[in-house]
Amino acid sequence: MADLITEAAVDPANWTCPAPLRDQPVVVMGHGGGGALSAELIEQVFAPAYGNPTLAALTDSAVLDLGGARLAFSTDSYVVRPLFFPGGSLGDLAVNGTVNDLAMSGARPAYLSTAFVLEEGVALDVVSRVAQAIGTAAEAAGVTVATGDTKVVESGHGDGVYVTTAGVGLVPDGVDIRPQRARPGDAVLVSGPIGLHGVAIMSVREGLEFGVEIASDTAPLADLVAAMLAVTRDIHVLRDPTRGGLGASLNEIARASGTGVRLRERAIPVPDEVVNACGFLGLDPLYVANEGRLVAFVPPDHAEAVLAAMRAHPQGTGAALIGECVTEHPGMVVVATGLGGTRVVDLPLGEQLPRIC
Amino acid sequence: MADLITEAAVDPANWTCPAPLRDQPVVVMGHGGGGALSAELIEQVFAPAYGNPTLAALTDSAVLDLGGARLAFSTDSYVVRPLFFPGGSLGDLAVNGTVNDLAMSGARPAYLSTAFVLEEGVALDVVSRVAQAIGTAAEAAGVTVATGDTKVVESGHGDGVYVTTAGVGLVPDGVDIRPQRARPGDAVLVSGPIGLHGVAIMSVREGLEFGVEIASDTAPLADLVAAMLAVTRDIHVLRDPTRGGLGASLNEIARASGTGVRLRERAIPVPDEVVNACGFLGLDPLYVANEGRLVAFVPPDHAEAVLAAMRAHPQGTGAALIGECVTEHPGMVVVATGLGGTRVVDLPLGEQLPRIC
Repeated sequence: MADLITEAAVDPANWTCPAPLRDQPVVVMGHGGGGALSAELIEQVFAPAYGNPTLAALTDSAVLDLGGARLAFSTDSYVVRPLFFPGGSLGDLAVNGTVNDLAMSGARPAYLSTAFVLEEGVALDVVSRVAQAIGTAAEAAGVTVATGDTKVVESGHGDGVYVTTAGVGLVPDGVDIRPQRARPGDAVLVSGPIGLHGVAIMSVREGLEFGVEIASDTAPLADLVAAMLAVTRDIHVLRDPTRGGLGASLNEIARASGTGVRLRERAIPVPDEVVNACGFLGLDPLYVANEGRLVAFVPPDHAEAVLAAMRAHPQGTGAALIGECVTEHPGMVVVATGLGGTRVVDLPLGEQLPRIC
Repeated sequence: MADLITEAAVDPANWTCPAPLRDQPVVVMGHGGGGALSAELIEQVFAPAYGNPTLAALTDSAVLDLGGARLAFSTDSYVVRPLFFPGGSLGDLAVNGTVNDLAMSGARPAYLSTAFVLEEGVALDVVSRVAQAIGTAAEAAGVTVATGDTKVVESGHGDGVYVTTAGVGLVPDGVDIRPQRARPGDAVLVSGPIGLHGVAIMSVREGLEFGVEIASDTAPLADLVAAMLAVTRDIHVLRDPTRGGLGASLNEIARASGTGVRLRERAIPVPDEVVNACGFLGLDPLYVANEGRLVAFVPPDHAEAVLAAMRAHPQGTGAALIGECVTEHPGMVVVATGLGGTRVVDLPLGEQLPRIC
């Protein structure tokens, strides 16, 4: 790798890269964190290179016209460390993460691909356990793994197993769910308690004990989304707040739609163990990753019925109304604290904890 | 990574992996080589874990029913080293490789996804150059990059840039192209000279000079396939002989269809510079990777017209009839040598040169 940081590349006079991204000539961990640095990488490097405005839309999945069908298409690489953790594994994330990205367009996920980058020397049994987790998670999510690939890199150029999944699904007629559709007045709903995935990873990685084992919330959300769409097809926005947590997701929606988001702190479901762990570690639960939660922007007329449908579903028993979309402070997210004040929830720069998914 | 090779994993008594794959408890470079070890990994680890017989079909892309459309879906990870080489780059391979996998089902490729795994510390300019190569190659191939993802791993856990692309396309009505459809009597056609990609990578990686710069043949083949399908929709098999070369691809087709393949050595187009480089390095050109060639199995009635259409296309000017499909030695590939003898072309175990794509 060292040979890539050549003098020619480091000398700005030789850059073909359109922007130095905060004067850093090199990739830092935060570029993979789902916050401001990730957004800059997309906006300044990938979108111009691909000449594609839809990519800049920052949706979880693209909705495309193909043969008369409305196809949702999404991909994510999974580099979580460790590979196995309380409540799940890399294999679960690789399935549920991509299934959920499809579901956030309102799509019914149908098929997945898996591409492995294996590090020479990793135990075949570990690869097999990851594959078995993928198979089990795919069956639970109602999708079929249809195609795949495997590459091997030398020891010291990987970390055991990296998996990239892509997925396709169909978007039902009349469904148009994307961040740009948030409107003042929309109710902001979350499907359950936040922060569990990030704290679960952190606790095993750092060897921390919080008195109780905290398990990742990783779960497929397509069926929950179908239950919500059965109430109304007019859901405006769906988002699974993974890297960067609820804070990053809401900021992206506020910016994409040009609206403000106002949250009520006391309404946000944060489990006690997440509060305690975050207090101990100096983290803000609003920025901790989730892997089995969604946030929804729903027209006020339908909010109560959609919330009831969420609560009636196994993946949404802890659903809550946490705020609303407003005309004030467009592009910004604020939270009304328990003490009567408000504070700004900014877009995080990177991730509080790298390699969370 | 070292922690993954735990004693528990190495002790066969604890294996959940269904087969030890040649008594190796760990992944070796050959598992990524597209030969026998890769096939065993699919057959013994992935197919059982996913419970999916279509995966075991070993096609380059899956053909799926989605919303009434026949969707081709494919993915590949690209870990080629170095990132830039004569004739192309990782970005070109990442587009053309997946476009070609779709085309090998007869599909018209439409959309791609790109997922980057970046190593901390890689120059942003290098990332930008890879992205620009992807954008340029996508435009040339007539596909749109619709969605993507970026993750970052710590220095020492990657190799600068890994890219995984997935792609979707539509398969025209009446087209059914897959290895199982090879029939005795089929003409075996190759679209041009073989071995250029592998030798190009090898020469830059090993610092070898062969008197003349050898450039990779990387190119998108979907338009060539469309020209062939304009002659007849009854093309039986298409395959791009990448990792493992023509030898591996023909063996897979012979095994999948239960037919034999008989080649005429003198008819196989091997450029002089590839002959020379392979002689020097002790390699067999039949196993050297290509990134812009296809092999086609065509009913004898149509062979001449399809060959003419290939030769009339910029990507097929060097096309040749190199052999035929036979009833003898089912599942085996033999080549009639210039001296009147025959030799068996076996499935390679791994790749002669790792990280070729």
